[in-house]
Amino acid sequence: MSASEKIWTAGLVVIGDEILSGRTHDKNIAQVASWLQVQGIRLAEVRVVPDEEPRIVAAVNALREAYDYLFTTGGIGPTHDDITVDAVAKALGVPVIVHPEARAILERYYAGKPGGLTEARLRMARVPEGADLIPNRMSGAPGIKLGNVHLMAGVPHITAGMLDALTGTLEGGAPLLSETIGCWTAESEVADLLRKVEQAHGQCQIGSYPFFREGRVGANFVVRSTDADALKTCCDSLIEGLTAGGHACTAGGI
Amino acid sequence: MSASEKIWTAGLVVIGDEILSGRTHDKNIAQVASWLQVQGIRLAEVRVVPDEEPRIVAAVNALREAYDYLFTTGGIGPTHDDITVDAVAKALGVPVIVHPEARAILERYYAGKPGGLTEARLRMARVPEGADLIPNRMSGAPGIKLGNVHLMAGVPHITAGMLDALTGTLEGGAPLLSETIGCWTAESEVADLLRKVEQAHGQCQIGSYPFFREGRVGANFVVRSTDADALKTCCDSLIEGLTAGGHACTAGGI
Repeated sequence: MSASEKIWTAGLVVIGDEILSGRTHDKNIAQVASWLQVQGIRLAEVRVVPDEEPRIVAAVNALREAYDYLFTTGGIGPTHDDITVDAVAKALGVPVIVHPEARAILERYYAGKPGGLTEARLRMARVPEGADLIPNRMSGAPGIKLGNVHLMAGVPHITAGMLDALTGTLEGGAPLLSETIGCWTAESEVADLLRKVEQAHGQCQIGSYPFFREGRVGANFVVRSTDADALKTCCDSLIEGLTAGGHACTAGGI
Repeated sequence: MSASEKIWTAGLVVIGDEILSGRTHDKNIAQVASWLQVQGIRLAEVRVVPDEEPRIVAAVNALREAYDYLFTTGGIGPTHDDITVDAVAKALGVPVIVHPEARAILERYYAGKPGGLTEARLRMARVPEGADLIPNRMSGAPGIKLGNVHLMAGVPHITAGMLDALTGTLEGGAPLLSETIGCWTAESEVADLLRKVEQAHGQCQIGSYPFFREGRVGANFVVRSTDADALKTCCDSLIEGLTAGGHACTAGGI
């Protein structure tokens, strides 16, 4: 495999009891996944773990070793349940220090605010030794980057700002392209066709995503490839097969 | 620890390239998590993995051994990318068979439908040997239960029906109760209070979930306990502390 064909991969650890209790609907998996696609990096695995240090350490170590990049969301705020920095420092075998630039950012951010830079807020300047900061234009407290590990906020709009700040800074490969073809047809009616078309187009994968809407069943077929020409040829072949079988379909999906 | 104090735990494996690509926003994590809470079972870990057999096998084996129950969502439909049954059979070391009752269900379900029970649809009667079925009142093809492993659909409303069918059938412990207290206050202003109140109420955990809405920062504090009295005492103490500090708060959350 040439260097240009390397597939870059990432793991994501979502940290937070609120996700595992069902209280909060996670929005970061989809957000991080979509962002990574554009960077030419594939999200290969996600683990959601509670606010417990040994569980965070285990997940961080497993995924940072298995993939090119590791991202975490959650647990970098000022409260007692924010233990991500300590857990990641433990996973990496380094001490936690106060980062001078993070401290300066927080001093400026809280200068005019009630209470100023309290002990609790100063927790947000703590980083594993050797780390750099990820700018946070939304709310002061920065994200943290050390080696292939990126610690981000749990609140989705703050995470989004940190992803923006990282855009274009990570080496990736060819983005995985995709096209969607929708059909008001039960996927089971066209399962053989999907399999045959995928087999005939080795550079493409076809996913089938059934739905039930407006009292009718349908499915979206998502064709993925890193090669734009192969993707088009495969989509044309699928549309031709669906149409020939009497299944009216909609390019772009339903 | 007495039998009544056992904490029952579950793992969830979400199977599907569409989640890892960001195309589909997962709804099953929150749905399964909330349902488990009511059954007195805690969702202890989630792993999201792609439609690749070795990755599914590894995640299923890791979580079914680590927790009392394992659930999976996704990959049990009729198309070529539905490989969950084969992967789980491999993980459990049993062959895949056609389940007679599942076959009968599919025969009835597809009797009046175009195409009838095709080879592709018959795939949905395949189960790991020894498995029982989980009824699916929404769309025919059943879920699958074998030992502590429960295979469910990926489409959220079908998953919901399968969870309904399982309600009350799994042994659990005391449900984890929770109360939410909301404040239009930066969590960093009350971080010390949260820590102190949690320390003073050993049977309770307090989570802090900041937000930014309508141009203002705020946070919801979620107090959790399996003991209703302890929960109430802790909430009262937190409300008293917040109010004394000049932070107007709203029981039930904001």
